[in-house]
Amino acid sequence: MPSVAAPAPPPAAVALEPRYRQVRAASRALAAPLSAEDAMVQSMDDASPAKWHLAHTTWFFERFVLEPVGQAPLRPEWNYLFNSYYDSAGPRHPRPRRGLLSRPSLEEVLEYRERVDARVLQALQAGDLPAVARDRLELGLHHEQQHQELLLTDIKHALWSHPLRPAYRDDLPAPPAAAPMPLAWIAVDERIVRIGAPRWPQAPGFAYDNESPRHRALVPAHALASRPVSNAEYRGFVEDGGYRAPALWLSDGWAKVRAEGWQRPLYWEPDLERAYTLGGLRALPAHAPVCHLSYYEADAFARWAGARLPGEAEWEQAAAPLAAEGHFADDGLLQPRPATAAGLQQLYGDVWEWTGSAYLPYPGFRPWQDATGEYNGKFMCGQWVLRGGSCATPRGHVRASYRNFFPPHARWQFSGLRLARDAA
Amino acid sequence: MPSVAAPAPPPAAVALEPRYRQVRAASRALAAPLSAEDAMVQSMDDASPAKWHLAHTTWFFERFVLEPVGQAPLRPEWNYLFNSYYDSAGPRHPRPRRGLLSRPSLEEVLEYRERVDARVLQALQAGDLPAVARDRLELGLHHEQQHQELLLTDIKHALWSHPLRPAYRDDLPAPPAAAPMPLAWIAVDERIVRIGAPRWPQAPGFAYDNESPRHRALVPAHALASRPVSNAEYRGFVEDGGYRAPALWLSDGWAKVRAEGWQRPLYWEPDLERAYTLGGLRALPAHAPVCHLSYYEADAFARWAGARLPGEAEWEQAAAPLAAEGHFADDGLLQPRPATAAGLQQLYGDVWEWTGSAYLPYPGFRPWQDATGEYNGKFMCGQWVLRGGSCATPRGHVRASYRNFFPPHARWQFSGLRLARDAA
Amino acid sequence: MPSVAAPAPPPAAVALEPRYRQVRAASRALAAPLSAEDAMVQSMDDASPAKWHLAHTTWFFERFVLEPVGQAPLRPEWNYLFNSYYDSAGPRHPRPRRGLLSRPSLEEVLEYRERVDARVLQALQAGDLPAVARDRLELGLHHEQQHQELLLTDIKHALWSHPLRPAYRDDLPAPPAAAPMPLAWIAVDERIVRIGAPRWPQAPGFAYDNESPRHRALVPAHALASRPVSNAEYRGFVEDGGYRAPALWLSDGWAKVRAEGWQRPLYWEPDLERAYTLGGLRALPAHAPVCHLSYYEADAFARWAGARLPGEAEWEQAAAPLAAEGHFADDGLLQPRPATAAGLQQLYGDVWEWTGSAYLPYPGFRPWQDATGEYNGKFMCGQWVLRGGSCATPRGHVRASYRNFFPPHARWQFSGLRLARDAA
Amino acid sequence: MPSVAAPAPPPAAVALEPRYRQVRAASRALAAPLSAEDAMVQSMDDASPAKWHLAHTTWFFERFVLEPVGQAPLRPEWNYLFNSYYDSAGPRHPRPRRGLLSRPSLEEVLEYRERVDARVLQALQAGDLPAVARDRLELGLHHEQQHQELLLTDIKHALWSHPLRPAYRDDLPAPPAAAPMPLAWIAVDERIVRIGAPRWPQAPGFAYDNESPRHRALVPAHALASRPVSNAEYRGFVEDGGYRAPALWLSDGWAKVRAEGWQRPLYWEPDLERAYTLGGLRALPAHAPVCHLSYYEADAFARWAGARLPGEAEWEQAAAPLAAEGHFADDGLLQPRPATAAGLQQLYGDVWEWTGSAYLPYPGFRPWQDATGEYNGKFMCGQWVLRGGSCATPRGHVRASYRNFFPPHARWQFSGLRLARDAA
Repeated sequence: MPSVAAPAPPPAAVALEPRYRQVRAASRALAAPLSAEDAMVQSMDDASPAKWHLAHTTWFFERFVLEPVGQAPLRPEWNYLFNSYYDSAGPRHPRPRRGLLSRPSLEEVLEYRERVDARVLQALQAGDLPAVARDRLELGLHHEQQHQELLLTDIKHALWSHPLRPAYRDDLPAPPAAAPMPLAWIAVDERIVRIGAPRWPQAPGFAYDNESPRHRALVPAHALASRPVSNAEYRGFVEDGGYRAPALWLSDGWAKVRAEGWQRPLYWEPDLERAYTLGGLRALPAHAPVCHLSYYEADAFARWAGARLPGEAEWEQAAAPLAAEGHFADDGLLQPRPATAAGLQQLYGDVWEWTGSAYLPYPGFRPWQDATGEYNGKFMCGQWVLRGGSCATPRGHVRASYRNFFPPHARWQFSGLRLARDAA
Repeated sequence: MPSVAAPAPPPAAVALEPRYRQVRAASRALAAPLSAEDAMVQSMDDASPAKWHLAHTTWFFERFVLEPVGQAPLRPEWNYLFNSYYDSAGPRHPRPRRGLLSRPSLEEVLEYRERVDARVLQALQAGDLPAVARDRLELGLHHEQQHQELLLTDIKHALWSHPLRPAYRDDLPAPPAAAPMPLAWIAVDERIVRIGAPRWPQAPGFAYDNESPRHRALVPAHALASRPVSNAEYRGFVEDGGYRAPALWLSDGWAKVRAEGWQRPLYWEPDLERAYTLGGLRALPAHAPVCHLSYYEADAFARWAGARLPGEAEWEQAAAPLAAEGHFADDGLLQPRPATAAGLQQLYGDVWEWTGSAYLPYPGFRPWQDATGEYNGKFMCGQWVLRGGSCATPRGHVRASYRNFFPPHARWQFSGLRLARDAA
Repeated sequence: MPSVAAPAPPPAAVALEPRYRQVRAASRALAAPLSAEDAMVQSMDDASPAKWHLAHTTWFFERFVLEPVGQAPLRPEWNYLFNSYYDSAGPRHPRPRRGLLSRPSLEEVLEYRERVDARVLQALQAGDLPAVARDRLELGLHHEQQHQELLLTDIKHALWSHPLRPAYRDDLPAPPAAAPMPLAWIAVDERIVRIGAPRWPQAPGFAYDNESPRHRALVPAHALASRPVSNAEYRGFVEDGGYRAPALWLSDGWAKVRAEGWQRPLYWEPDLERAYTLGGLRALPAHAPVCHLSYYEADAFARWAGARLPGEAEWEQAAAPLAAEGHFADDGLLQPRPATAAGLQQLYGDVWEWTGSAYLPYPGFRPWQDATGEYNGKFMCGQWVLRGGSCATPRGHVRASYRNFFPPHARWQFSGLRLARDAA
Repeated sequence: MPSVAAPAPPPAAVALEPRYRQVRAASRALAAPLSAEDAMVQSMDDASPAKWHLAHTTWFFERFVLEPVGQAPLRPEWNYLFNSYYDSAGPRHPRPRRGLLSRPSLEEVLEYRERVDARVLQALQAGDLPAVARDRLELGLHHEQQHQELLLTDIKHALWSHPLRPAYRDDLPAPPAAAPMPLAWIAVDERIVRIGAPRWPQAPGFAYDNESPRHRALVPAHALASRPVSNAEYRGFVEDGGYRAPALWLSDGWAKVRAEGWQRPLYWEPDLERAYTLGGLRALPAHAPVCHLSYYEADAFARWAGARLPGEAEWEQAAAPLAAEGHFADDGLLQPRPATAAGLQQLYGDVWEWTGSAYLPYPGFRPWQDATGEYNGKFMCGQWVLRGGSCATPRGHVRASYRNFFPPHARWQFSGLRLARDAA
């Protein structure tokens, strides 16, 4: 039975304490370019203010690490403000109203972060954290990395929503110029593969519960594109009338196109030559991966191109043998970069790749059996899986089995696509 | 490789003409208890008036069978009224406004049916229909059977929406009394099965394009319940506070429960002892399958019961060896009937069974390559598969590979559930 | 003190019984061209199905005339269906869902009318009705006449909402051709006038409670136009860009223009030459009064014309000396007719004239002190007064003191305008 | 003819420059307790962030005073951000999205204020402002005072919307304790009075255009309450089931009560003993005027009390002889104060008094004939007049002829009521 090799053991585990310091500092650094006022903007219901991300991730450690070991919360009344969606953690402030929270101030939130950090680090150093708490701490770091990416996507939307379109940072470089890279097809025979991750924390190597259990899957014969679809290719779709041709779209997607007046990807200017980036309005790099697409747009493009989106098992069996390396947020570009080599490229980083897989439980899936069981499982309805991470994902956060998910209309993430096609 | 046997060849094919007569007459018979006014009610956007169903199914034959062989439509201006969702067939009347169509009258629609029938039958008898038209005719009959079920579910909702709750028919019998039937679990080992149907019309035996291609699927080790969940069992969930326990629900489902104030299945009275049926308000038969559940409710019940919904491959491999026999609309009861035997029961008929499978294309799926390609494929987003047919489905309409689909909040169909569970 | 003469005594009062027969028969006649299906259409929340009007007006007699004299209702369960807005008469079917009432059928409603008529007439003939019941009967007749006009305006909207735009009656004549009639200004000095009607039934001569008490009002010096604004004049406003010039509009009106995409009066075709009428699509008579305007449009036109709308006291002091004669529904044209004479014309009939007066209680106003007190007073907020009746008003229904009222966005009534201007 | 004396000449006019300094400083002082984050909150569409008020009022001077005398705007791109509703001043940022404007920062806005102030003062001192510009400056000061009150009412709503209910200022005193003051009725015979203000700037003494022209009005015989309705009295209405009795309410008001679940005035706690104030949650002073009522509530209370709301002419003829003195924002209490004397009390200050008058043009009204003509006239639809100013109005801002206006559902202003009744 052909199979994908078991996932590589995690890189020599960095001790928890330095990682805690690193991850927490990274969030703070992402917020550094923002004024207290910028950090409060909520430009749509799906997004959150940067300040809220900073506070919520801190609350997560307080609630799930410190409280279980007997440390009363510093500000019990903030539980209501910074609980995101944990029904088991009590009532919470309505998500669409997070932008109204002028109190606590950004300054108070940053101080709150410091005080919680001091408590966590002291507990770590004192060896006061039992295994379960250390696991929760591990989870909290991955959780915070997710919010680092959301902080970037949400502030991008917030500043773009401002009529004057200010930049998040004025000092971001442009992506390197590049010649177009021909697209090749990597053919794969039908096979049974093992995908997913062994159940953590029983098995070593962190993975979310939704990546488990590791299990057999039947991958059909198909071919996978060597790289994501580029801006230039997507522009061809736009110029060919893709947004005016109902036959190319899912029914719900076409309804959305008409209701919202979509004519091009989010953040593109009408001239199809410029797009808003975290560095402000910039020329669109023709050969970089297209991003800020909804599932509907990715699917319609694939249909127009005579192809389809890959299934998540197809994607994972291609990615599993490779190291999870690529262009991530830490590179400080914050927009996708053109492919610069032939062969299977950019599976990790640059853009999240929409798959054709609905976000569903794997066979034998069980949510974590405590409050963190609300983390993933309850969202397994109406969403689609994206794979591979993006230019806004922290390096080291994703892996072959990582399953990101969003509803099909979402397009404020750095989401693009890679084509697949059935075997002839 | 363990596999399910190929689907049985279709029962000795009944010639097209008598089947055409039978199916068309059956629609007319379903509308017989309705006044012209009843036949015009549209009680929600998802439902259509009975008159519209009668006209639309007729339009389908005119548009897809007669026009291609050169017969001009009888009433060209009705194309706008009775096109459902075919973008390639031109603009159309908005679905939520179908209830405003006082013209044509029911009488005119019935006359339209007769005139189209005469044309179709004459063409059939004269041998004027080429193979492609005969295939479209075949499709049109299956299409009409789908609308027969919708006519029943839509009129049920329409009459229940009336403050006085009139019956569709006053002469419907009650289901037979029955003792509770113990639920058994049928264990199945991991296996590769073949599911789906060969592509029609290239292969004989009608199937929708979404059932194709027939393909290998990996079924995990699991156990399947011998019968659907009963009203009494579901009542236990309600009385245990199932509708007040967020931990049992998908996030979207819980939002719906709260937004709509759901406290029990659609059509149940607050006393949990009576429910509205097509025969009016009736005592709820304790051991008949529960129905009029949304996917959210089916899923929450399964979680409460420590089980899950079956995947569609699991369901199909169990159903494929069995004849597609059971309790269908033709039996004239129009509500589910209690199980009366041990062993695997009621896979066909009684209630549609929600599966845990999102409605997605099979590997290698291609929509039909003409106007009928809009029939199924464009809806493969945001919906879930149901299997097996119901007490409102015409006998002979479903088969093992049949894939019905509805969005997760829909509960006006005769939709229930059968439990499955992972192998220990 | 200059003053308007007291209103003329009512024309030799026709006895109640023949009037009852006449009014009831007139409603029936208005519904005659409609099928049961047409009579069930509700094309917007503000409108009601014709069948509902027929039933509600009958319910009014049963509830307010027969029940108080001890006659139990024929169908007590219909109270819920046909109560319009009387909180004191119990709960009621939501207005936007009146179109779902396939039961009772039109036939049953007509039979209900006959049975209630028999009871009323028998009681009348037997002299069983005390004075208060006879007053209620009187009120019920005026009430029914209001619904006769609504039946026409609502069915006009319903049939126009049908994509095929069928006519209500195919046999309606065209209005007579006419030369343009110059507009003259009738100047009035500042004066104190008496307006309104003595309180009925204490005083003879029916009037609604909102017309009382008769009271002094100060009318400023002004001039009133001799006739309503014509279609040709309004077309000038449209062609001059009136619908694109925010400076001409009230703020709420401009918001409505943009939200609804208004570009011309309701029922006008884009060519500004044809309009939908109860007789189907017809050429627009250039010199007939413009109608189907909202208050916003009437007000914007007046501003464009350098004028304003008249106040209701201004209108009433002009109309009071005149007999309430003109072009009404009984003339069987059902659209406004061009002015054919000089001098003050068309105050009564043809089109309701929007005034610049908000619909407010007169000084000393008291609602009737029983269930009918809900008839008028509770609507004195957010609406505007219209005066004079229209081509869809039954002859004899209006009088100088009559106050019709609608919200400012309403334009499905036969509503037009007459200009006024301040004294130089 | 009985008449009210002409309005007193304005107090010895304070020169424009010191008044400019004083008014501008007062706005700045009101914002002083707010952080940059507080100053950005927009808690509902009707309200604006404090920062926006500070910027918009400055833009007003730049646009309407400095630009016409040839001074280019400091930040032309801010015209889009800080234009409120002047169609003639170009397109503008949508009102419901003012809370998203993190840029410019509060600090930048305050600097903008200083730079514009420097320009204005220099122009004033240099004598560079022609009469029309000086009139615009005058208008701008009154405009800014209106926004001072709005800043207070908007920030009150914003902070109350925060789940932790922080205070605007922690140092606000409580209102003085007081014994209940009996309510007396001041009877007035029918009379013709002169109300309104001579047209400014042609006449001296600032007044908005909507107060003009001064004109005769007929006031009916009536009696006016000596003081506003108190919290204790309004509590009696609540406890008597006022919010559950449809017969007391206008139809639109009752719909609002049910749709919003209103059970008491805005900001009252369910115990009816405490209310949120700008100083945080406080005991409700029993004998202070009730406030934060909608028109619907004021009207329903009056009906319950067997009275009605006064007309604006009734109110003005009572207020005109009195000096416009009372309890205003400058007193630093920021909540209404109990009456402490007999006789006609509190016409000015404490609470705005809803009148029974719809906000309509006076006979002969003409808006100002330039861009400022959009100030008042275009809102004369769907709103009601309030009179007298409140505890949040700057001292010196209101006068007898001052007409404030809000839609009937608005209740976030300091709005209460005074009763009137018809003469027996």
